[in-house]
Amino acid sequence: MAKISGRPRSVDVERRNGISLWRQIADRIRLGIANGTLGGDGRLPPEVELAALYGVNRHTVRTAIAALMQEGLLRAEQGRGTFVAKRKKLSFPISSRTRFSAGLQGQVSARRSRLLTHRVEKAPARVSDALGLPAGAEVIRLETLSEADNFPLTRSTAWFDAERFSGFAEAFAELGSITLSYRRYGIEDYLRRSTVISARHADVDDLEDLRLAPGAIVLVAVAINVDLDGRPIQFAETRFAADRVELSIAIDDVVP
Amino acid sequence: MAKISGRPRSVDVERRNGISLWRQIADRIRLGIANGTLGGDGRLPPEVELAALYGVNRHTVRTAIAALMQEGLLRAEQGRGTFVAKRKKLSFPISSRTRFSAGLQGQVSARRSRLLTHRVEKAPARVSDALGLPAGAEVIRLETLSEADNFPLTRSTAWFDAERFSGFAEAFAELGSITLSYRRYGIEDYLRRSTVISARHADVDDLEDLRLAPGAIVLVAVAINVDLDGRPIQFAETRFAADRVELSIAIDDVVP
Repeated sequence: MAKISGRPRSVDVERRNGISLWRQIADRIRLGIANGTLGGDGRLPPEVELAALYGVNRHTVRTAIAALMQEGLLRAEQGRGTFVAKRKKLSFPISSRTRFSAGLQGQVSARRSRLLTHRVEKAPARVSDALGLPAGAEVIRLETLSEADNFPLTRSTAWFDAERFSGFAEAFAELGSITLSYRRYGIEDYLRRSTVISARHADVDDLEDLRLAPGAIVLVAVAINVDLDGRPIQFAETRFAADRVELSIAIDDVVP
Repeated sequence: MAKISGRPRSVDVERRNGISLWRQIADRIRLGIANGTLGGDGRLPPEVELAALYGVNRHTVRTAIAALMQEGLLRAEQGRGTFVAKRKKLSFPISSRTRFSAGLQGQVSARRSRLLTHRVEKAPARVSDALGLPAGAEVIRLETLSEADNFPLTRSTAWFDAERFSGFAEAFAELGSITLSYRRYGIEDYLRRSTVISARHADVDDLEDLRLAPGAIVLVAVAINVDLDGRPIQFAETRFAADRVELSIAIDDVVP
């Protein structure tokens, strides 16, 4: 097995047991290209550098690169090296069944969510409306950041009924997943009822959290999730860096 | 009936026979607020000015304003006038069944599409891929602008198989509708197979066509439409002014 380097910005690839090592490296190269940390000048660093960067052997890097060439993301130029053929954005699927935390299979592995802050507050009008709560009801507000390979993917603000979901922030902090946290409240599955997509310039906080330059654009998805009885359980606004991400609505989700 | 003024930027409200006059005026006020041409300072012009602007009587304007207050878009302040309560964006629905040219009911009336330019060209790779055509096949390219109340809503670039849809540009120029044009080719209905949404700064052409200021953001929807046999019939990129428009994915479309 490959040895894992101790560099702080590496994820521990060995922990992801279900996924072969070269696939994990392919995911990380793909993400690096999408977020601009790799191949920013159009050229991929040499195999030996990538092997050192990820703490794996050159054979593993070579297998990963071959797979990415197959995908059309990279191309080799005889005697000149490996180049980024197209700078592809990460594609987040939107449907009633998927969560943003899933659906990135084959694009990034080792995604995780982190709780930045949380508090209980009186629901703003749009939040109580969306959750079907009385005006001014108490809600739990979570500020979260999702990352892959220690690089920020999405920044979310989410609200939950404070009465029904008492202790939700602590559950999320422990489990790192909204879906897993719901299970503690007897919710095994849920649906996305509506999603509204807009775009705007990133505000100061999002610039910092998503590591964007001033003037950068965020795609904003405002979603209401409901339990299987149709009761709203979450109102959330998620921001995506528009230069790294696109949102994809597929017919398989839309037409039965 | 109200008399229609002859001012060039007015749509002819009398032609829209199915929709009552006050509803048409409400639509136009709503659109004016969404695109910033009305109430930009937070205050709606007096009834008498709106009546002159739209060439209708004050009673019609008053009924339209009352309906918009009911919606929560406007609010009256005793002795001070009528104010914009919330600056609501136009909401474009996305589903397999709707076209961007429909689905704005109750938001704007009198929408129409205009052909800006057209030509036959060799399909770029992403176009031939999307349409299932051989590389370099000939395609018809339409550049179109959709407007409501003479104000731009969307700017689209659409490609069609030049062999199957010979004469499509001429049909569209005559009919002002993709859906109606398809009927000439025996296509009574079609589906949206996929939609990918992204955002970017508007390019120079879009700035001008959508009447945006430099630095403005456009939402971009790239869609593939298929006939009922599943054959791709259109690949299109539509740009929306992000400060006026949001895209809405409803559960009714997603969950059967």
